Amino acid sequence: MSELFTFGLWTVGHRGRDPFGEPTRAALDPLAIVHGLAKIGAHGVNFHDDDLVPAGSSAADRDRVVRAFKQALADTGLRVPMATTNLFSDPVFRDGAFTSHDPNVRNYALQKTMRAMDLGVELGATTYVFWGGREGAEVDAAKDPIDAIKRFREAINFLCEYSVAQKYPLRFALEAKPNEPRGDIYFATTPAFLAFINTLERPDMVGVNPEFAHEQMAGLNFYHVVAQAIEAGKLFHIDLNDQKPGRFDQDLRFGSESIKTLFFVVKLLEESGYDGPRHFDAHAYRSEDADGVWDFARGCMRTYRILAEKARQFSADAEIQALLADIRGDQPASTVLSHAEVAEKIKSASFDLAAMRAKKLPYERLDQLVLELLMGVR
Amino acid sequence: MSELFTFGLWTVGHRGRDPFGEPTRAALDPLAIVHGLAKIGAHGVNFHDDDLVPAGSSAADRDRVVRAFKQALADTGLRVPMATTNLFSDPVFRDGAFTSHDPNVRNYALQKTMRAMDLGVELGATTYVFWGGREGAEVDAAKDPIDAIKRFREAINFLCEYSVAQKYPLRFALEAKPNEPRGDIYFATTPAFLAFINTLERPDMVGVNPEFAHEQMAGLNFYHVVAQAIEAGKLFHIDLNDQKPGRFDQDLRFGSESIKTLFFVVKLLEESGYDGPRHFDAHAYRSEDADGVWDFARGCMRTYRILAEKARQFSADAEIQALLADIRGDQPASTVLSHAEVAEKIKSASFDLAAMRAKKLPYERLDQLVLELLMGVR
Amino acid sequence: MSELFTFGLWTVGHRGRDPFGEPTRAALDPLAIVHGLAKIGAHGVNFHDDDLVPAGSSAADRDRVVRAFKQALADTGLRVPMATTNLFSDPVFRDGAFTSHDPNVRNYALQKTMRAMDLGVELGATTYVFWGGREGAEVDAAKDPIDAIKRFREAINFLCEYSVAQKYPLRFALEAKPNEPRGDIYFATTPAFLAFINTLERPDMVGVNPEFAHEQMAGLNFYHVVAQAIEAGKLFHIDLNDQKPGRFDQDLRFGSESIKTLFFVVKLLEESGYDGPRHFDAHAYRSEDADGVWDFARGCMRTYRILAEKARQFSADAEIQALLADIRGDQPASTVLSHAEVAEKIKSASFDLAAMRAKKLPYERLDQLVLELLMGVR
Amino acid sequence: MSELFTFGLWTVGHRGRDPFGEPTRAALDPLAIVHGLAKIGAHGVNFHDDDLVPAGSSAADRDRVVRAFKQALADTGLRVPMATTNLFSDPVFRDGAFTSHDPNVRNYALQKTMRAMDLGVELGATTYVFWGGREGAEVDAAKDPIDAIKRFREAINFLCEYSVAQKYPLRFALEAKPNEPRGDIYFATTPAFLAFINTLERPDMVGVNPEFAHEQMAGLNFYHVVAQAIEAGKLFHIDLNDQKPGRFDQDLRFGSESIKTLFFVVKLLEESGYDGPRHFDAHAYRSEDADGVWDFARGCMRTYRILAEKARQFSADAEIQALLADIRGDQPASTVLSHAEVAEKIKSASFDLAAMRAKKLPYERLDQLVLELLMGVR
Repeated sequence: MSELFTFGLWTVGHRGRDPFGEPTRAALDPLAIVHGLAKIGAHGVNFHDDDLVPAGSSAADRDRVVRAFKQALADTGLRVPMATTNLFSDPVFRDGAFTSHDPNVRNYALQKTMRAMDLGVELGATTYVFWGGREGAEVDAAKDPIDAIKRFREAINFLCEYSVAQKYPLRFALEAKPNEPRGDIYFATTPAFLAFINTLERPDMVGVNPEFAHEQMAGLNFYHVVAQAIEAGKLFHIDLNDQKPGRFDQDLRFGSESIKTLFFVVKLLEESGYDGPRHFDAHAYRSEDADGVWDFARGCMRTYRILAEKARQFSADAEIQALLADIRGDQPASTVLSHAEVAEKIKSASFDLAAMRAKKLPYERLDQLVLELLMGVR
Repeated sequence: MSELFTFGLWTVGHRGRDPFGEPTRAALDPLAIVHGLAKIGAHGVNFHDDDLVPAGSSAADRDRVVRAFKQALADTGLRVPMATTNLFSDPVFRDGAFTSHDPNVRNYALQKTMRAMDLGVELGATTYVFWGGREGAEVDAAKDPIDAIKRFREAINFLCEYSVAQKYPLRFALEAKPNEPRGDIYFATTPAFLAFINTLERPDMVGVNPEFAHEQMAGLNFYHVVAQAIEAGKLFHIDLNDQKPGRFDQDLRFGSESIKTLFFVVKLLEESGYDGPRHFDAHAYRSEDADGVWDFARGCMRTYRILAEKARQFSADAEIQALLADIRGDQPASTVLSHAEVAEKIKSASFDLAAMRAKKLPYERLDQLVLELLMGVR
Repeated sequence: MSELFTFGLWTVGHRGRDPFGEPTRAALDPLAIVHGLAKIGAHGVNFHDDDLVPAGSSAADRDRVVRAFKQALADTGLRVPMATTNLFSDPVFRDGAFTSHDPNVRNYALQKTMRAMDLGVELGATTYVFWGGREGAEVDAAKDPIDAIKRFREAINFLCEYSVAQKYPLRFALEAKPNEPRGDIYFATTPAFLAFINTLERPDMVGVNPEFAHEQMAGLNFYHVVAQAIEAGKLFHIDLNDQKPGRFDQDLRFGSESIKTLFFVVKLLEESGYDGPRHFDAHAYRSEDADGVWDFARGCMRTYRILAEKARQFSADAEIQALLADIRGDQPASTVLSHAEVAEKIKSASFDLAAMRAKKLPYERLDQLVLELLMGVR
Repeated sequence: MSELFTFGLWTVGHRGRDPFGEPTRAALDPLAIVHGLAKIGAHGVNFHDDDLVPAGSSAADRDRVVRAFKQALADTGLRVPMATTNLFSDPVFRDGAFTSHDPNVRNYALQKTMRAMDLGVELGATTYVFWGGREGAEVDAAKDPIDAIKRFREAINFLCEYSVAQKYPLRFALEAKPNEPRGDIYFATTPAFLAFINTLERPDMVGVNPEFAHEQMAGLNFYHVVAQAIEAGKLFHIDLNDQKPGRFDQDLRFGSESIKTLFFVVKLLEESGYDGPRHFDAHAYRSEDADGVWDFARGCMRTYRILAEKARQFSADAEIQALLADIRGDQPASTVLSHAEVAEKIKSASFDLAAMRAKKLPYERLDQLVLELLMGVR
C-alpha cells in the first residue's frame, strides 16, 4: 500500500456549522493543521485558495501566510499534492461561477482560479480539483443546461491553456455531485465528467476526482464508478469519506457506515496501480471538540489500513480464491471475436442452454465468506 | 412538433404481473396491438425479439409470424422505428449476458442479438436499443467491474461490425438503469454510456436511449441528462414514462407524476431539433382491463401534446420572455477567451463584486409564472 | 376556503445562508416582516423565541421588542397563531435538547421552552410547535433510543403540566423529520409522533404538525400521512412547502415541484374541516434579493388558492364524479360486520371470483382527467 | 441468546422470479423445506395459507397436505410460530383486500384470513402477521385514504373478535411497507401501525412486525424504529433481512449489506428481553441453485450469531464501556420533574452554558472502536 493519506484544510478545520446551527469549534490555524496532520502521520494537506489566504488579503499578507505555510511544510515534511478554488461561498457565485449568466462572474471565477492555481503550484500541487458547487439550478426555466455545458467547457479549456502557458505541472480532476447546495448540480455524477472530458481541447490533462459521499447520495455503486474511471485511465484523484444514501451531504469519517462497499473500493485502489493520494474529504461530528477532530482523522487512516489488510487477506484466502476460480472460470477477460468468420460461427452455433442455466454460481457462499472476513471471524 | 409517438409491444402488451402478483390481463396478440396503436394514432411500434417471435419458434413459425406482422404494418401504415433484444428473461442470463463470466452465455447473447437485428431490420428498424438488464451484480466479490466494461465493449464492437458487414442502416442506442432487477447495474446512468461510447471502435454509430424512469429512480435531473446527450450529439432515441424517485421501476403513464420536469424535457425535445421517436416505455396500472390499456396509451400521447403546447406558450409569453431576457442578458453563450492576452487581462481585472452580488435574479417570479402556465391559469 | 395563511419570521427572514455559502440577503427586522406580510394579505406570523427576542437580551430589551411587535400586530391586524422554541442553533444543544445525556441541557431546554411559551401566549399563540432538530444521533453506540423516547416524553409531559398550570390556551403540535441536521432524528415521521402521543399523560392537548418537505425527504406520501393525522383527530397545525425526495431539506416555495401531491393535500385540508393555519415553512431561493422574498411569499399563497380552486372544480366535474361513483360504488365506507353470525356467513360464503377480478377500475382515465384539470385543459 | 431462528416457506422456497425474468429454481415441496430447515438447525417455519395449501384445494387435499406437514414437524421438531395470509397474489386483490372499494373483495379477504387463521392455529402458530401488500394506491383520486384507514380498522377489529371467539391463542402483528407492489402503501412505516393500534377495539392483542428491508427502503433508521416498538410494548414479531436504501425490495441475506445498523438491531433484540422469533424474511440471489438456497439460510443464522457475539464483546469491552460511562454520565434515564415547584426552579435557574457547550463528547472515538470491534480487529 502506498500510504498517501491527505486531508484538506477545510476537513480537520471544519468548525461544525450546519444549516441549523452555529459553529461548535474554534477556527484552526493552517499551521496548526499542518503540524497536527504531521503528528498523526499524514502524507499531505490540500486547500482551497481562501482556506489558506483569506479573500481580500493584501499581497504582503498573502506572502507572509505563504512563507509561514511553506516553513511548516518544510518543518514537517508534509506535501501539498492538490489544490482547488472556492467558487461557492461568496454570494457573487450564488447562481454559478463558470456557468453564470453574467460574463463578469465567469471572468471573476477564472481570475480567482488562475490565482489559486499559482498559489497551489507554488506550494507544490500537481493535481488541481474543480468542484462546481454552485454550477446548477433550482429553476430550470432560467438557465439552459446546454449553455451551462458549453460555458463549463470554455472555462476548463481556458484554464488548461493557462496551465500549459505557465508550464505548470498540473493535471485537472473534475468532481461531480448530484445536488446540495443547488437543487440540481450540472454533471451530477462522475461519469458525466468522463463523458465531458472527451469533448475538451486537451482531454489528456483532465481526469476525475470521484467522491464517495456524492455518488452515495444518489444511491449509486461507488465501486463501479471508480472502476469505470480507472478503466478509462481517468482516476486522477479520489475523495474518501462516508455517507448514508438519499440524504444531505454528511462527509462522515471514512468507513464509519459503508464497510462492505468501501472494502471493495480500497481493494480496487490498492490493486489497480492507482498511485495518487487517498484524500479524506470529511469532517468530525459537530459534537466533537478540538481533540475529537484528531480522533476523526486518525480513524479515517486506521480504517483504510484495516480494509487494505482485509483486501490482502481476501487474495490469500484459499477458500475464497477457489470459489472465485470456479465462478470466473479460466476464460480470458477478452477474446478475439470481431471477425466475420467468427460472427458466422456464433450466429449458427447451437448452445446447451439447459447446462448453461444450471451452471453453479455460489454467490451466497462467496458473499458470506467476504462478510466473515470483514468481521474478522475467518 | 413531429408526432413520432411509438410504443413497444411489451408496453401495451404488459399483462400486469409483478413480484407479488399474477397477471391481471390476457396476453395481447402483436397484430391486435398494431391495429390498436394505429387506431389511437401512434406512429410506430417497437419490440424485443421474443415479443414478436416466441423463443424456440421454428423457422416456419417465425416466417408466418413475420409475414402477418408485415401485413398488419402495411394495412395500418404503422412503422417499426426501433427493435431490441430480450437478454434478461431467460435464466441463462441470470448473471449477465454480454458481461457473463461464461463465454457460452456471451456468445449466445451475441447470437440472439444478431438474429434479432436481422428481424428488426427486416421490419424496417433503423435504431437498435441495448438495455443490459442483467449486466450487474449483487455480489461485487464475484465479478470484476473492469472486466465487465471490457466485455460489454467487446460485444458492442462486435455487433457494430456485424451491422456494418450486413450493410444494415442501424444506429445503436444504449440504455442505462441504476438497479432492478440487479442490485446494481453496470453503466448506471446515461452519462456512463456517453463516456463509454468514446472508447468504442465505431463511436459514430452509437448513441444513448435515456429513460425518464431510470434516471428518476436515482433522483437525477432528467432534463439535464437529456441536455448532455443532445449537446454531445448522442440522443439517438428516448424512452418516456413517469416514476417517483427512490423506489422500484414503476413505468407509469407519461406525465402522470412529474409535470414540471417533463415539461422541460418536452420543451427541449421540441426545440432541439431532435427528430427521432417519442417512445412511451410504460404500461397501464395493474388494475386496468383491456380497455384501460388504451386509455393509458392515449393518455401518454395527450399529455405530451399538452406539454408541447405549453412549451409554445412559454416562448410566446411576453412576461416570461422579458424576465428571461433580463436574467440571461444579451451575452452570447460562448465568447472567445482562450488567448494568453485575454488571460492576462482577466487575471488582472478588477471587478465590482458588490454590484455583481446585487444583480437581480427574479427566479421566484419566473418559476411561479411557469407553474401558472403549467396549471393553465395564465 | 378559510384563508389562514401564515409565515414564520424565519421564512421570509431567511438570509440565504447554506452549508457552502454565506448569507446573500440582509437581516429583515421582525417589524418589517409583519408589515410586509400584512401587505401581501397574510393572516399571521409565527416565530421561534430567538427570532423575535435575540438570545441573551435583557428584560428591558425583551419588553421593548415585544411592545413594538405588539404594536405592529395591532397596526396591521396580523395574528400570531403559533410559536415555537429554537432548541437547535446553540452548540449547547449539539447532541440534543430534551434527549441530551446532560440533565443540565435538558433543564435548560425546558427553561428556554417555558419562557418561549410565555412569550408566545403573550402574543396570542394558541398552538405551540415542537421540532426537535437535534434530538437524534450519528453514533447509535452513544445514545439509547429507548432512553431518548422516555426523556422526550418526560419533557412533553412536564411542559403540558406547565401550560395547564399557567392556564395557557395552548395545544402542542409535534413535528417530525427523518434527518438533517442529525444523521437520524428520533421520531422520524409524523406517525411516530401519533403513536407517541398515546403514551403521554395528557394526550388530548397534543397533536402533530406534519411538514411536507420532511415526509417527502423519505419519499413518503404526504397526503396519506395527513389523512392519518386527520383521522386520528390530531392535525393541529401543518407546514406547507415543497421538496424533491431523497435529498437535503430544500424548503421550496409551496407547489413549486409537487403539483399533483399538493393538490390532494389542499383538497383534503379544504374538505376535511381542518380550520387551522396554512403555514408556509419555506424560504426564497438563495439567489433572490429583498424583493424576491415577497415574490416567494405571494407565490405560496397564490398556488394554494389555485389548487383549492382546482379542488372545487374536481368536485364539480361531472365526468370525474361519474367515474368516481362507478369506482367507489354506493357502499358505505364502513359496514357492521363484527358479529359472530356475520363471521359465520362470511366464512362460508361463496364468491364469484371471476367477476370480482373482472370489475372495471378505470384509473388511467380518472388520473388522466385529474392531470388535465391540474394543467387547466379541461 | 434465545436462538429462535425461523424462515417462511416463501423464503427458502423462493424460485427466483422477478419483474424481468422467469424462475431459476424448481419449486420446493413444503416437506422438503421443513426437513431442510431442521437440518441447518432452524427453530421454526412460517407460511402464508397458499404456500402450504394451494388455493382451490379440496377439503380432502387440504387435510392430506396438513397431515403430512404435521408429520414432518413432528419428525423434525420444527415449530410453526407464525402464520399469515396471502392477500396480494390473486388479481382479485389488485386494488386492495381489506381496503378495496368492493365489499365482496373485503369479505373474501376476511374469509381467506379466517380460514388461514384456522390453519395457522391448527399447526401451532401463536403470532399472526398482516402485511397488506395491495392496500395502497397509485391514483390518489380514486381512493379516500381516510376510508382506507377505517376499512382496515374494521377488518382488524373483526378478526380480533373472530380469534377471541374461537379461543385462539393468537397475537396479531402488523407489518408496514412504504411501496411496492403499490405506488404507495397505506401505513407506510411501522410507527403508522403503532399509532393505528391505539384506535382498535382490542389494542392489547395487536402489535407490529417491523421488517428491516421495508424501513430501509425509505432510508429510515431501523434500530430507532424497533426501539420505539419495544418501548411501546408492541414488538410481537420481527422480519430480518437486508436491503440497500432507496430502491426495490431486495430481501437480501441477513447482514449482507448493513453490518453496522444490524449490529445495533441484534444488540437491542438480545438485550431487550424480546423472546420472539428471529424470522429471516429474505431469499437467495436469483443466481443460486437448490444448494445455494441453504447456503443463504445458513448465512442468515451465522451472521446473526456473529453479531450477537459482537454485542457481548461490546458489553465486555472496558475501553468502550468507560467511554460510554463518560458520555452518558451517571444520571438516571428519567428524573422526577413534573411538579410546579420544580418548574419554578428550572425556569429561574442559571446555567453555565459555556461549560455545557464544552462538555466532551468523544463520539468519533467511540464509533471507531465499535467499527474495529465489528471488523474483528480489537
